[in-house]
Amino acid sequence: MNTIQSLEWRYACKKFDDTKKLSNPQINTIKEAFRLTATSFGLQPLKMLVIENPDIKNKLLPHAFNQPQVATCSHLLVICIDTEINGDTIDACFDLEKEIRGTSEDIVGGFRKQLKDMFANKSTEEIERSSIQQAYITLGNLMTVCAIEEIDSCPMEGFLPHKIDEELNLADKNLRSILLLPVGFRADDDFMSSMKKVRKPIDNIVIEIND
Amino acid sequence: MNTIQSLEWRYACKKFDDTKKLSNPQINTIKEAFRLTATSFGLQPLKMLVIENPDIKNKLLPHAFNQPQVATCSHLLVICIDTEINGDTIDACFDLEKEIRGTSEDIVGGFRKQLKDMFANKSTEEIERSSIQQAYITLGNLMTVCAIEEIDSCPMEGFLPHKIDEELNLADKNLRSILLLPVGFRADDDFMSSMKKVRKPIDNIVIEIND
Repeated sequence: MNTIQSLEWRYACKKFDDTKKLSNPQINTIKEAFRLTATSFGLQPLKMLVIENPDIKNKLLPHAFNQPQVATCSHLLVICIDTEINGDTIDACFDLEKEIRGTSEDIVGGFRKQLKDMFANKSTEEIERSSIQQAYITLGNLMTVCAIEEIDSCPMEGFLPHKIDEELNLADKNLRSILLLPVGFRADDDFMSSMKKVRKPIDNIVIEIND
Repeated sequence: MNTIQSLEWRYACKKFDDTKKLSNPQINTIKEAFRLTATSFGLQPLKMLVIENPDIKNKLLPHAFNQPQVATCSHLLVICIDTEINGDTIDACFDLEKEIRGTSEDIVGGFRKQLKDMFANKSTEEIERSSIQQAYITLGNLMTVCAIEEIDSCPMEGFLPHKIDEELNLADKNLRSILLLPVGFRADDDFMSSMKKVRKPIDNIVIEIND
């Protein structure tokens, strides 16, 4: 399949075949794609939880309105934001850059200070909103990567984040769940898999500005 | 390149080779990928502007702090949200579904009413926040699609949306600009292209939950 055929093949899988599991290379591709997601200022204010254990998936199921994709998937991914972004976490990013690129403090110092000042002046709500937006970039990236790898997925906003956070003790990890992405392989009888994709025509949503 | 190699090849291109233009098939792939982006409830509250004209790109340049990628790119994409989502726009989505899938009103009616009620109870700010999140899904999708197609891109939050909106009369189209994505081909002398990618190690950002 070419890229567009992969995106057409993709749909929000509502029922996975729970006998089929992602291989290690497949799950590693997803993890690495998550790691490589572009984020604002490269801060990566995100973590991804990977849940394979059926008991845990079943425990989370009622907090996602019993939607079967949560329990039938091979792996349930939970995209979370870090609830603490401060001078130390920003410093850690610049230290990592220096380590990986061998950049000197002379080069990164100005931007380090500028970014720390910028974040010091933001409200907790503004910082969280930005981190949540990065979680959505990740979602877009991962859905596409999965499609290209012929892995089914289902993007989910419809769940009770505070319940998931409580169940998984995410506050202890300074995390908040933002999105779920069950991944695996579509069940033969998922009625959604044969549905035509509904999208507005290109001419309604793409505007060429020439003058 | 495999998928991960493509994501590693991708970086935020700061200077494009302005003599190289995307081919028609390449720009069509981007448009179609935009169209195929998954959105919440399938509402597609987004439009994508495509700007090739150098005069317009140069006019927008100061509103993006004169960052050279805005003017040197082959095409400047502006991801916008619709500022009007109401009963009529929701109806149009369900009507499109009926047309494409041949679904009857008996089937879609209940969900149509539920969604219209849900949106009627949301504040303008809540609706906008959700549409903006969909713009970020699109960004994630398009960056990955571009990488796979060996097209360079640069995700940009750093610009003055109200200035861009004014310059392009977006209010008249009921649109607000949210993100820029210049696309094209990296210049040989873009100093960022040879930089090592800085990412936290997998073990710091992926958490396996097994019990």
